[in-house]
Amino acid sequence: MSNPHPPMTASPQYDTATLESLRRVYRDGLLHDTLPFWIPRAIDREHGGYLTAFHEDGRLLHPDKPVWFQGRFAWLLATLYDTVERRPEWLALARHGIEFINRCCFDRDGRMFFALTREGRPLRKRRYLFSEVFATMALAAYARASGEEQYARQAFALFQLILHYHRTPGLLPPKTDPAVRPMKGLVMPMVLLCTAQELRKTVPDPLCTQVIDEAIAEIERDFMKPDLQCVLETTGPRGEFLDTFEGRMVCPGHAIEAGWFILEEARLRNNDARLIRIGTTIVNWCFTAGWDPEFGGIFYYRDALGLPCAEYWHDMKFWWPHNETIIATLLAWQLTGEARYARWHAQVHDWAYAHFPDPVHGEWFGYLHRDGTVATRLKGNMWKGPFHLPRMQWYCWQRLEELLAASRADGTEPPSATAQ
Amino acid sequence: MSNPHPPMTASPQYDTATLESLRRVYRDGLLHDTLPFWIPRAIDREHGGYLTAFHEDGRLLHPDKPVWFQGRFAWLLATLYDTVERRPEWLALARHGIEFINRCCFDRDGRMFFALTREGRPLRKRRYLFSEVFATMALAAYARASGEEQYARQAFALFQLILHYHRTPGLLPPKTDPAVRPMKGLVMPMVLLCTAQELRKTVPDPLCTQVIDEAIAEIERDFMKPDLQCVLETTGPRGEFLDTFEGRMVCPGHAIEAGWFILEEARLRNNDARLIRIGTTIVNWCFTAGWDPEFGGIFYYRDALGLPCAEYWHDMKFWWPHNETIIATLLAWQLTGEARYARWHAQVHDWAYAHFPDPVHGEWFGYLHRDGTVATRLKGNMWKGPFHLPRMQWYCWQRLEELLAASRADGTEPPSATAQ
Repeated sequence: MSNPHPPMTASPQYDTATLESLRRVYRDGLLHDTLPFWIPRAIDREHGGYLTAFHEDGRLLHPDKPVWFQGRFAWLLATLYDTVERRPEWLALARHGIEFINRCCFDRDGRMFFALTREGRPLRKRRYLFSEVFATMALAAYARASGEEQYARQAFALFQLILHYHRTPGLLPPKTDPAVRPMKGLVMPMVLLCTAQELRKTVPDPLCTQVIDEAIAEIERDFMKPDLQCVLETTGPRGEFLDTFEGRMVCPGHAIEAGWFILEEARLRNNDARLIRIGTTIVNWCFTAGWDPEFGGIFYYRDALGLPCAEYWHDMKFWWPHNETIIATLLAWQLTGEARYARWHAQVHDWAYAHFPDPVHGEWFGYLHRDGTVATRLKGNMWKGPFHLPRMQWYCWQRLEELLAASRADGTEPPSATAQ
Repeated sequence: MSNPHPPMTASPQYDTATLESLRRVYRDGLLHDTLPFWIPRAIDREHGGYLTAFHEDGRLLHPDKPVWFQGRFAWLLATLYDTVERRPEWLALARHGIEFINRCCFDRDGRMFFALTREGRPLRKRRYLFSEVFATMALAAYARASGEEQYARQAFALFQLILHYHRTPGLLPPKTDPAVRPMKGLVMPMVLLCTAQELRKTVPDPLCTQVIDEAIAEIERDFMKPDLQCVLETTGPRGEFLDTFEGRMVCPGHAIEAGWFILEEARLRNNDARLIRIGTTIVNWCFTAGWDPEFGGIFYYRDALGLPCAEYWHDMKFWWPHNETIIATLLAWQLTGEARYARWHAQVHDWAYAHFPDPVHGEWFGYLHRDGTVATRLKGNMWKGPFHLPRMQWYCWQRLEELLAASRADGTEPPSATAQ
């Protein structure tokens, strides 16, 4: 099919040799650096499930099990088995997480905990639905990988529970009184979007695409602000701009992640031009506002009006916004062929690979100061584990395979959306 | 009375000229820099109470009212009226806060909210007792300043409510399931200690000193760890060391604040040698572990075993640990005459005054990177406002008046605990 967004400029662009080199970086990084850091270290053979809180050298720093990562790592392993290579170890390790999820992570009301002891006893439950989101993704991916239908049914039921809690006012009371200051966050349509995309691969129920369409419509209508050239994290219930710390808050890495979920939907819908326009608009705003012109890298938070951020650590450079920006810019380039996306991809890729990887023990550091120096040397905690980095490596590798295959088929150099 | 801790070394020590210079820095900073930043700016004449979230130049960044600061600023103003000068404006402005507290900050169960809209409608209530703590201090100070007995009674009743909630298991369920991992924090004995000290000035009920004795005993028994040379923030219910991120967490600025509360109790008890020993031990541990040998300043968090901290922004330099360390080292020097406390006081005073003050608009920046550069330029938010900085300026000024008066009476140079 033809490219709805022809290149704006002929150069600089990625040539085949560069794409091959990038494929090698992502593929080999995933298989020979990231996965070996976590396997077998993260697998708790005694109590089940996965551990994440490791020091740079792999020493365990904290015994608790984050429920997010029981889903996230099981999703990754099942996805690798399903899309990369049918290695029995990956399937078995995914099942190891799924079994722990079903044995220890659910409360009696059907919702899930946030953290467990190493032995699997519940420590904390939160008023957010992210444990459920990642478990849904894991169950859906595991059902595809294993062919076991029961997990598809469980994934669909859990997704419906998420929707029920999200759509029923009062079931999960927010921290701020909704009668005094009603607010909503970008995060819910964003995670519903990617969860429905994952679930749809396993359960092609019309509900999935309906949720995806509604999520994208809500992001475009309520959170994207053309006058401010940004995607807000928090608005009033109908997208009203709130002139408070929270209402002005922009998280470029978070919004650009939503952006590539929308571009992924464009890719899956035959390069849908409207979705490409929405997704690339988000990428453009986020990269422009998020890139630190002084030290490089993507800021964690910005203020929509250029005022001080609510968070004092707003200018730190975290690993995951760089993972998401690398994905978003590569995908935007694949879909549009516009040179700026190759340029931005190279810029964020180069900065990230110059600052985050640990050359001694492998994997990436997670938390840098604004100037790019390492702020804490751990490899995992309750929020960092085998997810954003390996997902980036896997996803970008897949895109580069497509680009290179199209290039070989054409006998032409990339870029082009004909890579589809 | 004699000094139970004679100087360990003769020099370097503060001479009278230095003490006079320090008194000028604190006194003039309070009266001519800090207070003029907040008065009249923080006073909301339309809706009552105080605003805090100001940009460096005084523009309002956020409309919400933090309940902590309704108490904290009222306490400061009443205390200045009571101890510095009977300026009617200070008493009237303290009353302005007390009236707002009583009109808007209490929930129907007698507990207090955490944040209100500018108009005074409740936005958020938390499962901590700090709003109540600061209101108790404000009411006690205001009762002394105004001579109105009703506020003393209210302060005492609110203090009893705090004790009731703190001592009754299950009334304020912690975030982590106490049946699975029971924990307790340094913060409660610490704030009970200083609240009881403040209340006792107004209501000399034996309960106050009883709470103070219990709090100091609990800090010494359960949170001070001689083998680790630190004061832990979180332990098991009987002081058990927990080998988790939370259990290893040390906050030098917080612990040194507890340390000077104990030294203040020593001062009020005729330089009680046992309390001086406890308080100076805390100061010694905190200064040694908390001082950044590379860039200077006091780290926010440390790990008791030297492992990575749970918080990624652990090495930032916040204003308030420096305020507390300046107080603690000056007070330790006043009580012991040991040269190291003069040296440490000079060290932290010089670093703080070289990095935090805003030479253009006055007051202090609150949040610096590890290297001392400003991370965010605001002057106030829900946690920064007219408290730690002016309390330090007021408290140190008071101590310096005592030291200088004693020096004049003796005809000798300080230092000495005879300044009592």
